[in-house]
Order: sequence, then C-alpha cells, then structure tokens
Amino acid sequence: MNDNTTPASGKVQIHDPFWSEYIRLVREVMVPYQWEALNDRVEGAEPSHAIRNFKIAAGREAGEFYGMVFQDSDVGKWLEAVAYLLETKRDSALEEIADGVIELLAEAQRDDGYVNTYFMLKEPGKEWTNLAECHELYCAGHLIEAATAYFRATGKRKLLDAVSRYADYIAAVFGAEPGKLQGYDGHQEIELALVKLFQVTGEEKYLELSRYFLDQRGQQPHYFEQEWKKRGRTLHFPQLSMVHDHLYSQSHLPVREQTTAEGHAVRLVYMCTAMADIALETKDAGLLEACRKLWDNIVNKRMYITGGIGSMEQGESFTADYDLPPDLAYAETCASVGLIFFARRMLELEHTSKYADVMERALYNTVISGMSLDGTKFFYVNPLEVYPEVLGKNKNYNHVKAVRQGWFTCACCPPNVARLIASLGDYIYSTSTEGDILYVELYIGGRTARIMNGISAVIEQISSYTSDGKVRLSVTPEQASEFTIALRMPDWCHEVQVSLNGQSRTHHAGNADGYIHLTRKWVSGDTLELQFAMPVTPMKGHPHIRQTFSKVALQRGPFVYCLEEADNGTRLYQLRLPQGNEYSLAEEAGFPEGIRTISVSGRRMLPEAGWGEELYSSGPPLKSREVQLKFIPYFAWANRGEGEMSVWIGEEQ
Amino acid sequence: MNDNTTPASGKVQIHDPFWSEYIRLVREVMVPYQWEALNDRVEGAEPSHAIRNFKIAAGREAGEFYGMVFQDSDVGKWLEAVAYLLETKRDSALEEIADGVIELLAEAQRDDGYVNTYFMLKEPGKEWTNLAECHELYCAGHLIEAATAYFRATGKRKLLDAVSRYADYIAAVFGAEPGKLQGYDGHQEIELALVKLFQVTGEEKYLELSRYFLDQRGQQPHYFEQEWKKRGRTLHFPQLSMVHDHLYSQSHLPVREQTTAEGHAVRLVYMCTAMADIALETKDAGLLEACRKLWDNIVNKRMYITGGIGSMEQGESFTADYDLPPDLAYAETCASVGLIFFARRMLELEHTSKYADVMERALYNTVISGMSLDGTKFFYVNPLEVYPEVLGKNKNYNHVKAVRQGWFTCACCPPNVARLIASLGDYIYSTSTEGDILYVELYIGGRTARIMNGISAVIEQISSYTSDGKVRLSVTPEQASEFTIALRMPDWCHEVQVSLNGQSRTHHAGNADGYIHLTRKWVSGDTLELQFAMPVTPMKGHPHIRQTFSKVALQRGPFVYCLEEADNGTRLYQLRLPQGNEYSLAEEAGFPEGIRTISVSGRRMLPEAGWGEELYSSGPPLKSREVQLKFIPYFAWANRGEGEMSVWIGEEQ
Repeated sequence: MNDNTTPASGKVQIHDPFWSEYIRLVREVMVPYQWEALNDRVEGAEPSHAIRNFKIAAGREAGEFYGMVFQDSDVGKWLEAVAYLLETKRDSALEEIADGVIELLAEAQRDDGYVNTYFMLKEPGKEWTNLAECHELYCAGHLIEAATAYFRATGKRKLLDAVSRYADYIAAVFGAEPGKLQGYDGHQEIELALVKLFQVTGEEKYLELSRYFLDQRGQQPHYFEQEWKKRGRTLHFPQLSMVHDHLYSQSHLPVREQTTAEGHAVRLVYMCTAMADIALETKDAGLLEACRKLWDNIVNKRMYITGGIGSMEQGESFTADYDLPPDLAYAETCASVGLIFFARRMLELEHTSKYADVMERALYNTVISGMSLDGTKFFYVNPLEVYPEVLGKNKNYNHVKAVRQGWFTCACCPPNVARLIASLGDYIYSTSTEGDILYVELYIGGRTARIMNGISAVIEQISSYTSDGKVRLSVTPEQASEFTIALRMPDWCHEVQVSLNGQSRTHHAGNADGYIHLTRKWVSGDTLELQFAMPVTPMKGHPHIRQTFSKVALQRGPFVYCLEEADNGTRLYQLRLPQGNEYSLAEEAGFPEGIRTISVSGRRMLPEAGWGEELYSSGPPLKSREVQLKFIPYFAWANRGEGEMSVWIGEEQ
Repeated sequence: MNDNTTPASGKVQIHDPFWSEYIRLVREVMVPYQWEALNDRVEGAEPSHAIRNFKIAAGREAGEFYGMVFQDSDVGKWLEAVAYLLETKRDSALEEIADGVIELLAEAQRDDGYVNTYFMLKEPGKEWTNLAECHELYCAGHLIEAATAYFRATGKRKLLDAVSRYADYIAAVFGAEPGKLQGYDGHQEIELALVKLFQVTGEEKYLELSRYFLDQRGQQPHYFEQEWKKRGRTLHFPQLSMVHDHLYSQSHLPVREQTTAEGHAVRLVYMCTAMADIALETKDAGLLEACRKLWDNIVNKRMYITGGIGSMEQGESFTADYDLPPDLAYAETCASVGLIFFARRMLELEHTSKYADVMERALYNTVISGMSLDGTKFFYVNPLEVYPEVLGKNKNYNHVKAVRQGWFTCACCPPNVARLIASLGDYIYSTSTEGDILYVELYIGGRTARIMNGISAVIEQISSYTSDGKVRLSVTPEQASEFTIALRMPDWCHEVQVSLNGQSRTHHAGNADGYIHLTRKWVSGDTLELQFAMPVTPMKGHPHIRQTFSKVALQRGPFVYCLEEADNGTRLYQLRLPQGNEYSLAEEAGFPEGIRTISVSGRRMLPEAGWGEELYSSGPPLKSREVQLKFIPYFAWANRGEGEMSVWIGEEQ
C-alpha cells in the first residue's frame, strides 16, 4: 500500500487483497520477464527476435527478420502494459527502457510512416498484398494502442506522433477513393486502436478510417479472394484457410448484418469492441444494434460458464448455439480478454449490469485461469474438463494442456493478460455521460477521484468481495454534492445489505438497469458498507446445452469452482452432487489470500459388485458411496501438478 | 431360394431371412454399380479411372494415370467380391466381365511381373521408393486376394499365375539378403494376401515373404525414415504424417512387442489378421501371444459396443484405453470388416467363442450400419451419437455424416462390405483340425457340406435368429457318424433351449470354450432346435469409460439398439431409461423382415418451470415427464432422413 495517493481524475489506484498480488506479478514478474524474452535473453526459450527485428530495420544491426509475421505486435503489447504500469506508479528505470524502445521504433519507421519489420526486412515491396493472412494492420493497431497508452501515462508524444504518421499513411493507402485499396485486415485490431488514436488526438480522420475498415469487411466481391488472385494465389499459411474461410475472419457478411458469433473468437470480440466504440463515438444506431445481437448470441448461446468463448480448436472458433463441450473447449485466454473489452464498451453505450456481469465472469475465471498463481506459466486454452491420461493420445485434445506452459509456447496470451491486469483500474467504475451517476462495476479495492456533477469526489473502496462479499465505500467530495452512486447487483447475488452511515437496508435486486441507485447529497465521511450474500450456488446450463445437461457447476460470488484430482481422486465423472447438502468453506494454504475452497458431502457411483475385464456387460447396477467432495476456484486449477479437473458434476436427481 | 443345392464341401449356400437380402443387394446392386463406377459410367460421380488406368498401362489406350495412389486396389476388391459371388452362384455374364478384367490386368503386367498403374504411368523408375505412403504392396495384396478367390471360385489360373509372378518379383526385391530392400508396406495388406497365395499354391516362399514383412515392421533403423531421406525427403501426402508418425502404421515397435492397439485401425486389424495367419500356419507361439495381447487390448479396452474401432478421426486411429467418445467416434466400416478377419483367424487358432462373439457384434452392427437398407448409400464413419445441428459448424465432427453418402465419397468401405457379405458363408462354421467338431459360429440360415471324421455330412440351418432367436439345424451325414456339433452360446445369451429330435434341455452357458458340445452318432434326419432367450438387455460400459458412465445401451440378440429423432423427438440427451420397465417389441414397415423395434416407458427430463434466455442459472430443478421411448437396431439408423441418433441413454439411478 505504498501508493495510497489519490490518482488522477478518472483513474484508479488499486489496493485489493486479491488483485494487488496479480498487479504485482505483472509489474515484477511478467513485464520484466517479457522484456528479457523480447531481447532473446531467456535461456532455453526460442528466441523472440522482436527487438532485434526493429534494430535491423533501424539499421543499427545487420541480420534478417525472424519470427512470426505478427512478431512486431509483441513489442506493442509489451509497451502498452508498461504504459499502464507507469500510469499507476512511476518507475524511471522502466520508463527509460520504454523510451529506448520508442526511440528504436521511430528510427525503424520509414519516411512515409510505414513500420512493419516483417515486410521491411523480408518482403519489401509486398506491403498490403496479403491482408487476409499477414496481420499488417493488426501489428499497426498494437503499436497505436501502445502509443495512446504511453501518451496518456507519460505525456510523451514521440510514439504517438510516429503512429499518427503511420495512421496517416494507412489512410492514404486504404479507402473508398479510386486508386486506394478497398481492404481490411484479416485479424481485427486496428479498428479499435484507431478509435483510441482519435480519442487521444481528437482527429476525426482516425475514426473515419476505423469505420471504413469495419464497413468494408464482408463486402462483395470479397477482398481476400481478390487480393489472393492478384498476388498469384500464394498463401502465407497454406495449412490454414484464412483466405477462403470467410466465417473465420467474420468477413462472410457485412458486420452490420452479422447476428451470430462466428469464426475466430478473438477476432470477433476485437471487432465487436471497435463496433461498439464507433457506435458510441458516432451514435451509429445500426452498429449498436449489431453489437447487441452479437452480444446476445455470445452470452446467451455460445459462452462457457467461465466466461470462455470458442468451442473448438479448429480456427480457435465459435461453433453453434448451445454447443459447449467442456473437454474440447478452446476458450482462449485472449478471447476472454477481448470479451471484457467488448463488455466495457457496451457498458458505456447502455448502462445495464449484464455487461459488467460478463466482464466479471470472464475476468475472475478464464482470464486469471490463464496464468499460474506465481505468474510464470500460462494457459492459452482453458478447458472445463481435463482427463490427462488421454492427452497426447486422443488428438482431438492436441490443444489442451493439463499444466500451464512457459511464456513462449503461447506468446499471445500472457501479454494480453498483462495489459488487462495493468489497466484493471479502468474497469472498476463508470460515470454517466451527464456526470451525475457513478457506477460501481467491479468491487475491487482502491481509490479513485471523479468529477461528479462538477465537483471532485474521492471514492475509496475497501473490499474483501472475493472472500466474504464485504465492501466498504468511503465518499469524500470536495464539498457536499448531490449525485448517484449506482451499485451493481451481481447476477449471482440475490441479497445485499447496504448500510449508509450505519443505516442498513436489504436489496434483492437492482433497478431495471441492474444497479442499486443511491442518490443523495454526499458529504465527506459518508460511508457505504455492502454485504453481498455469497452462498455456494449450484449453477445449471441451459437445457439446450447437451454437454452440461443434468449437471451442475458450483459458483460462489464471482468464482466458478471445479473439482481436481488432487482433492477428489481420479475418475471425476463418477462423482455426483446431491441436492440440498450443506457446503462448508475453508481457507487453505496454497491459494490466494481469502480464497475459499468448498467441501460438501457427495457420492461416488461405482458398480455394486466390481467389474471384470469385459468392456460391456449387463450388470451390476451402480451403487453410490458417500464421499467428501472438495471444489476449488476454477482459476486456481493446475497449480498442484498434473491431474484431472472438471467444472461440471452430475447432479443427483 | 433358387440355389437350394448343396455347395462344395466346406462352403455354405446362404438362405436366410435377414442375410439373403444383403447378399442380393451385393449381387444385384453393389457389384454392378461398382463396375459402372470403375468404368467411369456413373453420372455425377467423380471418375474412378481405375479400369482406364489399366487400359493405358496395357497400351490399349492413350492417356495419363488418374486417381489415388492406391486406385488399383478398387479393381482388386471388386474382383474379389465377384469371385465370392461366382462361388455361390454361377453367372456367366459376370464371369465374362471378370475374365475380361483379368485379361486386362495380365496385359498391363510388366515382363518382370510388376503391376501398379500409378508407378508404371506416373512415376516410372520410382517403384519401391515410398512404401510408407504409396500403398504399392497394399495394391499388390488386393490383386493377390482377388486372384486366390477367383481361382477358388472358378478354377481359372490366369490371374493366379499373374500374381504369383508378381509375388515372385516382390520376393526378389525384398528380403534380408544383401542388395534387397529391407522394407514393408505403410498399409498392411500384402501380408495376409501372401498367406492366401500360399494356401492356394502350397508355395512356402509366400508364407516366408509374409513373415518377413511382418517381422521387418518396426525394426530400427526405421525403414520409412531411411527411404524418406534416400528419396530426398519428399512426401506424397504432405498434410499427413505417414512417414514420421510410426504409431500410425504400427511401425513403432516390432510387431511381436506390440501390446496395445495403436494407430490406424484398419492397418492394425489387417496386420493382426496376417499375424494370426502366420501363427496358425507356422505354429509361431510368439506371434500368437502378440495376437492375444492385441486382441485383448482392442476388445477389452478400445472397442465400441457396436464392434466399431478407432476413436478419433486424426489418423483414423485408436486413442487410449477406455476412451470411446460416442459422438467423435471414427469406427470406420472397413475397420470392423478387418476386425472380423482377425476374429475369424483367432477362432482357427484357439477355439473360444469370444472371437465369434466379436465377429457377430461387428457384423450385425457396424458393418451393416455401413450401408443403407437399399444398398445404395454408405457410411465410412459410424458414430454412436449424432446431433446434426452441430455438424458442419463444429469441425471436430467434420468426419461425421448424419446421412449415408454415395459410393464415391467413401470408396474404400463399400467394396469391403461387398467382399465380406459375398463371402459371409466362410464365417458361419468352423471345423476342428481333427475333423471331429463342427463349430456353429453364426446362426445364419443355409446349407453346407462338411467332412466330419471322414464322412460327409450336410448341415442345413433354418434360422430366424435375428427376429426371435429360433434356429433349426438338420444333420444329414452320408452314413451314421460320430462327431461333435458345438453350438456357440452368444455372449448376450444366458439361456438356450436345445432340442435334439424333440428332446429338450436348457443351457445357461457353454463349455469352457463357450460352446455347447453335442457329441453323438449323428444319423440322417437328426434335428436340433434351438431357442435362444433374447430379452432386451440394458448394457453398460466398463466403469472406466467416462463417456458411457451411468448410461445404458439396449441390446437384443446380436443387435445393439439406438434412439432416433424420428421416433423420439429432438434433444435425445434429455431422455432417461428407468430400470425395470417392461419392453415391448414390434415389427414395423420400413425395417428388414423380422426386425423388431423396442418400446419402453421412459422419461424426458426438463426444467420444472421452463427456462428463460439465460445460458446459466441456479434453477429450476429438472422434472421428469413420462414419455414412450422407441429404439431401433443401430444398423438401421439414418434410413428415414436426417436426425439425431444416440446409442447410449442415461439410466435413471
């Protein structure tokens, strides 16, 4: 708590028993480690070459490009995370390193503004000839995101100016005008980045370019097919079908006509984020309507209970409504990060708590399942059920790991987790456009300052939400001021005690928007104490999900739980949860502070009379034996060695 | 029943209410259709070019090779099926066509004996440089099998002589001697074919060559790696891993050291068939022991209840013990045909009924599931659960079809089904080596003549086994003769009434070998009447199979049943089967004669109070509603349009 100062207005300084440790891990472990990795100094890891590519492009070193076609984006994502860290805590050594990287990027940039080390070093002259596969605008987007974050954090313009020149160049290359390319990137990203660039610079042209890319997507004749023919039908990734599978890149239809979440999950949510951004900035009702439809389809038909999205490995993609296999799930960490981006924008567009509910679900489950408790190992894929003995043998599970991997086996997810957690403060509060309502979206401890109805107020949140559902909010306006504090009633909660300066009232629901609105003239010293009832709740899936039918998953507060072999033995599928048994909670060593495990009396089904060698037989009947079941929060699984895991358990009917 | 003559000794003339129709389909529909297909005369189908390849190779026509590298094998398999048909019913028109094809093959054959149209036309000089991928010996094997069958059926030697010359040439190319290739084929087949060639010609050298190929497999240094380096590391199927995935082709270990069924399922069972052949012909105890271990692993750990094998699409392969996903099953029709080949050989090696039980299971379920009831459409893949709405969307199911396809979408399975059904008579009886026991393996109606203890006896079986479990066996020896008739007690049956000339006795089990042995001096007119109790039996999977745990599959007699949407509505996973309810049987239009459907009162589980839009929620509880469940035999599924299907149903506990 060495940063107990009041942050800049609108920003949040987090001090939370649960989240501060994650932020520390990002600051002290992940970002320094990734810096070493980007510079090829991690022993045993495949070289990244990302910084070296820029050095070669800048003429500082001789050599050749090495890495994936999107290698530059690793530098952008790292810089962005650094920016968020600097925003909440100055660190001159880190800032010096970042300034050096920015110097390098600017040096590598071409006179016309272009910067992409793959094309500059490996395929000069082939710029913009393979948007479907080569992530050129995607890489540009990540540099732009980094630049806007760095400018906001430090006020330094160097990178911002560089990416603005790049964006201007891109605007000269792409557009409806004759002679320009009528294309868009295979992997959406630049669209949302350009909105950030507009927000920082105030330049409408970036908003226009973002909208152009969005609206161009899915038009006929299909751009990816055209450019493919034009370049002689070559493929960068011949084993994938990025060019011809238009669903994969959400280019099967104009974005405004898309009503179901299809294709690569990360691309879809990045696209939706940009659509919501544009809808917000330009009051584009058509885009808003498309966002709503896609949101509903994701959240009501294609999302895992953990907030994971993407039901199959092929294409890292969505499949069909209500098709949510727990064992084959892809549920990429990055996709849940992107879902949070999308949710955050929807909250700004129309303030209903359902968006924050999903943000919370994805954050507390899939996103942090993506990293080990010590911040050194990562999941790319977040299955809801794992039987290690078939991994490596049944190739349908080739994407599934039972233990987290070092950084470089899955390079895209760790930096995404890092930049989200480093900027977590941006997700905790919202303010209404009129400045009269302060929405509390997430119950995460820390301090913020907000201008409410023109008067600055400091809000301090002290939270033990993750352990016992208690939150204390102190309100300190510069002077007495009337405004509304809107407390999100989480979707999992059916009773909250709200005490205002000691006067208590019980709420069973929020208003129509899902928030409990408290409007008054707030004075310094006003204190809200919240006690969310946080019972263990057996959750069911929609009866159209065949994979979860007649099963339950335990949830307590924001956490979805799971069974692990370490606590429950092997063959988890033989376990059953009776209805109505009493749950007991415990705090245990090895889990984050305040986190509770759940124990409950359950059953293990076994053949009454043993079973012989035969694979199929008419008997004996199953008999249930009482066993003690122990559940741990899903995010904490696979921190105790390799073993079986299952979120869903059969419910005794 | 126009063929009610007594067949040649050891052969069977089938007249069966169930099987005669299948044989008719093979004779009247499948074999004529395939002849048209092989000659590219099927409108709308992709050309086969198989006959034309031979015409070009023979110099009769100009042109280029077209088709798969193993295209020749289609001609071999077709000829083999024709041979079996001719064996049971002369057909001069068909024989003339076959003679013409044989003329053509002989004309195409090179002077040195080699014949393979792919290499002769497309890659001359590259013979034997890519055994791992190019199926060269595999194609040779199918020609050899055709030749031996045709010789047995017609006594004509032309093809037999041709393939003998080819085999002699192969023996000159391959072997342990210096200067020869120490290789073996990627796809096992020639091994079992060479044993047939030995059996027909009496030439030990063919047996030796077969054993050489078997024993060479899996030796180090690895032949496929060596030939790959030698030919410049080229690949015929770059998207597959036939060269480097040694498990795939069972070349990861010497065959005698293999104890688990790994890799491509068809290859494994073809290999095991040859191993059993060699074990039988040469009394090779090591091979027999390896066969036993592999058999046990397949049948006790890696086989579907339908007799299907291969749990994954990738590599059309086995996965792990007790890993039997019903929806992702590969269970290739050809693999079950091959399993029957293996079982038949094991029966000869050690006469226990378990081998015939599996033969029956695979035959009555997966093999005939492979074709539509009208013989015009085929399944390559035989899943045990299908939800059509996710097919095409969830790419894990890309191999699964909900409706059977025309011949050419799956060219390997239909001819395999044809040759098995055309030779079905060979699977019904066995005779002990000493000639004193006649084993009845399958209860299929028809007539056979056997030499028992030196005296010829005609056995006539009249069977309604598939509908009511009744079988009548009439024994007509040329003169009174003592021998044993051993009646297989099927694994699904726990009570059979056996009446000998009207004197009845009830058996609850067979002898230690699984057969009921009846030894007496048989006289003309002796009649056995069998009544197998054929109750509907809910079958369970081994408790280590997570995918079938707490579910049951109904079986009646040899048939495994399934639920179809046509009878039970959608969302079959919501159905439950209570224990102890009464089953009723019915004969219905649209199913083969005598086949019964099963009805039983069951339950559909549904949320008590409906369910809203939300994907996850804490309630309401499930409530069960009584519904009438109808099951049909698995083999008959997908004959009434597209719909859901499931073999397994949750059992009410």
